[in-house]
Amino acid sequence: MVSPFPLPDPMRRALDLARLAGESGEVPIGAVVTRDGAIVGEGQNRNRRDLDPTAHAEIVAMRAAAAHLGDFRLTGCDLWVTLEPCAMCAGAISHARIARLYYAVADPKGGAVEQGPRLFTQSQCLHRPEVYGGLAEAEASALLRDFFAARR
Amino acid sequence: MVSPFPLPDPMRRALDLARLAGESGEVPIGAVVTRDGAIVGEGQNRNRRDLDPTAHAEIVAMRAAAAHLGDFRLTGCDLWVTLEPCAMCAGAISHARIARLYYAVADPKGGAVEQGPRLFTQSQCLHRPEVYGGLAEAEASALLRDFFAARR
Repeated sequence: MVSPFPLPDPMRRALDLARLAGESGEVPIGAVVTRDGAIVGEGQNRNRRDLDPTAHAEIVAMRAAAAHLGDFRLTGCDLWVTLEPCAMCAGAISHARIARLYYAVADPKGGAVEQGPRLFTQSQCLHRPEVYGGLAEAEASALLRDFFAARR
Repeated sequence: MVSPFPLPDPMRRALDLARLAGESGEVPIGAVVTRDGAIVGEGQNRNRRDLDPTAHAEIVAMRAAAAHLGDFRLTGCDLWVTLEPCAMCAGAISHARIARLYYAVADPKGGAVEQGPRLFTQSQCLHRPEVYGGLAEAEASALLRDFFAARR
Protein backbone atom coordinates (compact mmCIF):
# COMPACT_ATOMS: atom_id res chain seq x y z
CA MET A 1 0.00 0.00 0.00
CA VAL A 2 1.10 3.52 -0.69
CA SER A 3 0.68 6.47 1.65
CA PRO A 4 -1.76 9.13 0.48
CA PHE A 5 0.94 11.80 0.94
CA PRO A 6 4.70 11.91 0.36
CA LEU A 7 6.55 10.48 3.33
CA PRO A 8 9.49 12.33 4.88
CA ASP A 9 12.77 10.71 3.82
CA PRO A 10 13.69 9.46 7.33
CA MET A 11 10.41 7.54 7.63
CA ARG A 12 10.91 6.16 4.12
CA ARG A 13 14.34 4.92 5.26
CA ALA A 14 12.87 3.47 8.48
CA LEU A 15 10.36 1.49 6.39
CA ASP A 16 13.21 0.19 4.21
CA LEU A 17 15.06 -0.91 7.36
CA ALA A 18 11.89 -2.60 8.64
CA ARG A 19 11.65 -4.51 5.35
CA LEU A 20 15.29 -5.60 5.64
CA ALA A 21 14.68 -6.80 9.21
CA GLY A 22 11.73 -8.89 8.06
CA GLU A 23 13.72 -10.40 5.20
CA SER A 24 16.32 -11.57 7.73
CA GLY A 25 13.71 -13.20 9.98
CA GLU A 26 13.48 -10.42 12.56
CA VAL A 27 10.25 -8.61 13.40
CA PRO A 28 10.03 -5.94 10.64
CA ILE A 29 10.60 -2.70 12.51
CA GLY A 30 13.05 0.02 11.50
CA ALA A 31 14.22 3.27 13.06
CA VAL A 32 16.31 6.29 12.15
CA VAL A 33 17.75 9.13 14.25
CA THR A 34 18.17 12.50 12.56
CA ARG A 35 19.80 15.74 13.60
CA ASP A 36 19.08 18.89 11.60
CA GLY A 37 17.49 16.67 8.96
CA ALA A 38 20.52 14.41 8.45
CA ILE A 39 20.55 10.74 9.46
CA VAL A 40 23.00 10.16 12.33
CA GLY A 41 21.94 6.63 13.33
CA GLU A 42 19.94 3.72 11.94
CA GLY A 43 18.55 0.53 13.39
CA GLN A 44 16.41 -2.48 12.69
CA ASN A 45 15.22 -5.20 15.03
CA ARG A 46 18.18 -7.52 15.71
CA ASN A 47 17.15 -9.55 18.77
CA ARG A 48 17.89 -12.90 17.15
CA ARG A 49 20.89 -11.85 15.09
CA ASP A 50 22.62 -10.12 18.02
CA LEU A 51 21.30 -12.47 20.76
CA ASP A 52 20.22 -9.30 22.57
CA PRO A 53 16.85 -8.87 24.34
CA THR A 54 17.23 -5.08 24.07
CA ALA A 55 17.98 -4.90 20.32
CA HIS A 56 14.79 -3.20 19.18
CA ALA A 57 15.15 -0.90 16.18
CA GLU A 58 14.92 2.25 18.31
CA ILE A 59 17.59 1.11 20.80
CA VAL A 60 19.93 0.08 17.98
CA ALA A 61 19.42 3.42 16.20
CA MET A 62 19.91 5.52 19.34
CA ARG A 63 23.04 3.62 20.38
CA ALA A 64 24.45 4.12 16.88
CA ALA A 65 23.60 7.83 16.90
CA ALA A 66 25.15 8.38 20.34
CA ALA A 67 28.35 6.59 19.29
CA HIS A 68 28.44 8.59 16.06
CA LEU A 69 27.86 11.93 17.77
CA GLY A 70 30.11 11.15 20.74
CA ASP A 71 27.47 12.01 23.32
CA PHE A 72 25.30 9.70 25.41
CA ARG A 73 22.49 12.24 25.10
CA LEU A 74 20.83 12.90 21.77
CA THR A 75 19.62 16.39 22.62
CA GLY A 76 18.05 18.04 19.57
CA CYS A 77 17.79 14.75 17.66
CA ASP A 78 14.60 13.24 16.27
CA LEU A 79 13.64 9.55 16.18
CA TRP A 80 11.62 8.02 13.34
CA VAL A 81 10.30 4.51 13.86
CA THR A 82 7.80 2.30 12.05
CA LEU A 83 5.92 1.15 15.19
CA GLU A 84 4.86 2.94 18.36
CA PRO A 85 7.66 2.37 20.90
CA CYS A 86 7.30 -0.12 23.77
CA ALA A 87 8.03 0.80 27.40
CA MET A 88 11.71 -0.12 27.07
CA CYS A 89 12.17 2.06 24.00
CA ALA A 90 10.04 4.93 25.29
CA GLY A 91 12.15 4.96 28.45
CA ALA A 92 15.32 5.03 26.37
CA ILE A 93 13.90 7.87 24.23
CA SER A 94 13.37 9.89 27.39
CA HIS A 95 16.85 9.10 28.77
CA ALA A 96 18.38 10.08 25.40
CA ARG A 97 16.53 13.42 25.38
CA ILE A 98 15.08 12.84 21.90
CA ALA A 99 13.34 16.07 20.81
CA ARG A 100 10.68 14.69 18.45
CA LEU A 101 9.33 11.18 18.03
CA TYR A 102 7.66 10.24 14.74
CA TYR A 103 6.10 6.79 14.44
CA ALA A 104 4.31 5.11 11.56
CA VAL A 105 1.65 2.99 13.24
CA ALA A 106 0.21 2.64 16.74
CA ASP A 107 0.72 -0.61 18.67
CA PRO A 108 -2.29 -1.42 20.85
CA LYS A 109 -0.58 -4.60 22.14
CA GLY A 110 2.80 -3.27 23.19
CA GLY A 111 2.89 0.48 22.64
CA ALA A 112 3.70 2.59 25.70
CA VAL A 113 3.38 6.09 24.25
CA GLU A 114 -0.30 6.48 23.49
CA GLN A 115 -1.53 3.26 25.10
CA GLY A 116 -0.88 1.25 28.23
CA PRO A 117 1.38 3.16 30.62
CA ARG A 118 1.57 6.27 28.35
CA LEU A 119 5.05 6.79 29.71
CA PHE A 120 5.57 10.38 28.61
CA THR A 121 2.49 11.46 30.58
CA GLN A 122 3.79 9.93 33.83
CA SER A 123 4.66 12.58 36.40
CA GLN A 124 8.08 11.01 36.99
CA CYS A 125 9.02 11.31 33.29
CA LEU A 126 11.91 13.79 33.16
CA HIS A 127 11.95 14.40 29.41
CA ARG A 128 9.03 14.20 26.99
CA PRO A 129 9.59 14.38 23.24
CA GLU A 130 7.03 15.93 20.94
CA VAL A 131 5.09 12.97 19.49
CA TYR A 132 3.70 12.56 15.96
CA GLY A 133 1.98 9.24 15.22
CA GLY A 134 0.32 7.69 12.18
CA LEU A 135 2.77 8.86 9.50
CA ALA A 136 2.71 5.65 7.45
CA GLU A 137 0.09 3.45 9.04
CA ALA A 138 -0.84 1.41 5.99
CA GLU A 139 2.70 0.55 4.94
CA ALA A 140 4.08 -0.21 8.39
CA SER A 141 1.12 -2.32 9.45
CA ALA A 142 1.15 -4.25 6.14
CA LEU A 143 4.80 -5.15 6.76
CA LEU A 144 4.00 -6.50 10.22
CA ARG A 145 0.80 -8.26 9.13
CA ASP A 146 2.49 -10.04 6.22
CA PHE A 147 5.42 -11.06 8.42
CA PHE A 148 3.29 -12.66 11.09
CA ALA A 149 0.85 -14.17 8.56
CA ALA A 150 3.75 -15.96 6.86
CA ARG A 151 4.77 -17.48 10.20
CA ARG A 152 1.38 -18.88 11.17
CA MET B 1 26.33 0.86 56.70
CA VAL B 2 25.98 -2.87 57.06
CA SER B 3 22.82 -4.88 56.36
CA PRO B 4 21.20 -6.46 59.41
CA PHE B 5 21.24 -9.86 57.65
CA PRO B 6 23.69 -11.65 55.35
CA LEU B 7 23.19 -10.58 51.74
CA PRO B 8 22.97 -13.14 48.95
CA ASP B 9 26.24 -13.27 47.01
CA PRO B 10 24.76 -11.87 43.74
CA MET B 11 23.51 -8.74 45.53
CA ARG B 12 26.87 -8.38 47.26
CA ARG B 13 28.50 -8.49 43.81
CA ALA B 14 25.96 -5.98 42.41
CA LEU B 15 26.88 -3.59 45.24
CA ASP B 16 30.59 -4.03 44.42
CA LEU B 17 29.82 -3.21 40.77
CA ALA B 18 27.84 -0.14 41.86
CA ARG B 19 30.84 1.03 43.86
CA LEU B 20 33.14 0.54 40.85
CA ALA B 21 30.72 2.54 38.68
CA GLY B 22 30.75 5.41 41.16
CA GLU B 23 34.56 5.39 41.35
CA SER B 24 34.69 5.82 37.57
CA GLY B 25 32.28 8.77 37.63
CA GLU B 26 29.14 6.90 36.60
CA VAL B 27 25.98 6.79 38.71
CA PRO B 28 26.73 3.98 41.22
CA ILE B 29 24.36 1.22 40.17
CA GLY B 30 25.34 -2.40 39.61
CA ALA B 31 23.51 -5.50 38.35
CA VAL B 32 24.09 -9.21 38.03
CA VAL B 33 22.22 -11.94 36.14
CA THR B 34 22.26 -15.44 37.61
CA ARG B 35 21.07 -18.82 36.37
CA ASP B 36 20.80 -21.71 38.84
CA GLY B 37 22.74 -19.57 41.31
CA ALA B 38 25.73 -18.90 39.03
CA ILE B 39 26.55 -15.45 37.65
CA VAL B 40 26.10 -15.41 33.85
CA GLY B 41 26.25 -11.63 33.27
CA GLU B 42 27.34 -8.49 35.08
CA GLY B 43 26.85 -4.79 34.49
CA GLN B 44 27.40 -1.36 35.92
CA ASN B 45 26.19 1.99 34.69
CA ARG B 46 28.32 2.96 31.68
CA ASN B 47 26.38 5.78 29.97
CA ARG B 48 29.35 8.14 29.88
CA ARG B 49 32.08 5.57 29.31
CA ASP B 50 30.23 3.87 26.43
CA LEU B 51 28.48 7.02 25.10
CA ASP B 52 25.26 5.01 25.27
CA PRO B 53 21.94 6.36 26.58
CA THR B 54 20.77 2.80 27.22
CA ALA B 55 23.80 1.60 29.22
CA HIS B 56 22.13 1.20 32.60
CA ALA B 57 23.53 -1.57 34.80
CA GLU B 58 20.57 -3.88 34.13
CA ILE B 59 20.76 -3.50 30.34
CA VAL B 60 24.52 -4.08 30.35
CA ALA B 61 24.12 -7.19 32.55
CA MET B 62 21.26 -8.66 30.49
CA ARG B 63 23.06 -8.08 27.18
CA ALA B 64 26.16 -9.77 28.62
CA ALA B 65 24.13 -12.72 29.92
CA ALA B 66 22.29 -13.18 26.61
CA ALA B 67 25.57 -13.13 24.68
CA HIS B 68 27.12 -15.57 27.16
CA LEU B 69 24.17 -17.98 27.06
CA GLY B 70 23.63 -17.64 23.30
CA ASP B 71 19.93 -16.81 23.65
CA PHE B 72 18.18 -13.47 23.35
CA ARG B 73 15.77 -14.62 26.06
CA LEU B 74 16.97 -15.15 29.61
CA THR B 75 14.23 -17.59 30.58
CA GLY B 76 14.87 -18.98 34.06
CA CYS B 77 17.44 -16.30 34.90
CA ASP B 78 17.30 -13.90 37.83
CA LEU B 79 18.36 -10.24 37.88
CA TRP B 80 19.91 -8.59 40.93
CA VAL B 81 20.24 -4.81 40.86
CA THR B 82 21.06 -2.15 43.43
CA LEU B 83 18.23 0.24 42.45
CA GLU B 84 14.61 -0.28 41.44
CA PRO B 85 14.60 -0.46 37.62
CA CYS B 86 13.37 2.45 35.49
CA ALA B 87 10.79 2.02 32.70
CA MET B 88 13.46 1.24 30.10
CA CYS B 89 15.02 -1.47 32.24
CA ALA B 90 11.71 -2.90 33.46
CA GLY B 91 10.61 -3.18 29.84
CA ALA B 92 13.85 -4.98 28.97
CA ILE B 93 13.41 -7.32 31.97
CA SER B 94 10.00 -8.28 30.62
CA HIS B 95 11.29 -8.77 27.05
CA ALA B 96 14.15 -10.92 28.40
CA ARG B 97 11.73 -13.14 30.39
CA ILE B 98 13.68 -12.67 33.64
CA ALA B 99 12.15 -15.04 36.23
CA ARG B 100 12.93 -13.15 39.45
CA LEU B 101 13.93 -9.54 40.03
CA TYR B 102 15.76 -8.63 43.25
CA TYR B 103 16.53 -4.99 43.91
CA ALA B 104 18.28 -3.30 46.80
CA VAL B 105 16.48 0.02 47.18
CA ALA B 106 13.30 1.60 45.80
CA ASP B 107 13.55 4.64 43.50
CA PRO B 108 10.65 7.05 44.05
CA LYS B 109 12.00 9.39 41.35
CA GLY B 110 12.59 7.00 38.48
CA GLY B 111 11.46 3.52 39.51
CA ALA B 112 8.85 1.90 37.28
CA VAL B 113 8.25 -1.36 39.15
CA GLU B 114 6.57 -0.32 42.38
CA GLN B 115 6.05 3.37 41.56
CA GLY B 116 5.03 5.47 38.61
CA PRO B 117 3.77 3.29 35.75
CA ARG B 118 4.22 0.01 37.73
CA LEU B 119 4.99 -1.64 34.42
CA PHE B 120 4.57 -5.26 35.47
CA THR B 121 0.99 -4.55 36.58
CA GLN B 122 0.00 -3.12 33.17
CA SER B 123 -2.46 -5.34 31.34
CA GLN B 124 -0.32 -5.25 28.18
CA CYS B 125 2.74 -6.62 30.05
CA LEU B 126 3.43 -10.06 28.53
CA HIS B 127 5.88 -11.33 31.14
CA ARG B 128 6.08 -10.40 34.82
CA PRO B 129 9.00 -11.50 36.96
CA GLU B 130 8.58 -12.26 40.65
CA VAL B 131 9.77 -9.10 42.44
CA TYR B 132 11.68 -8.82 45.71
CA GLY B 133 12.62 -5.29 46.81
CA GLY B 134 14.54 -3.82 49.74
CA LEU B 135 17.35 -6.39 50.00
CA ALA B 136 20.12 -3.90 50.81
CA GLU B 137 18.42 -0.55 51.20
CA ALA B 138 20.94 1.07 53.51
CA GLU B 139 24.03 0.17 51.51
CA ALA B 140 22.64 0.92 48.06
CA SER B 141 21.10 4.24 49.08
CA ALA B 142 24.29 5.32 50.91
CA LEU B 143 26.27 4.72 47.70
CA LEU B 144 23.90 6.91 45.70
CA ARG B 145 23.61 9.60 48.37
CA ASP B 146 27.38 9.93 48.79
CA PHE B 147 27.88 10.03 45.02
CA PHE B 148 25.42 12.87 44.45
CA ALA B 149 26.51 14.75 47.60
CA ALA B 150 30.11 14.79 46.31
CA ARG B 151 28.91 16.34 43.03
CA ARG B 152 26.94 19.19 44.56
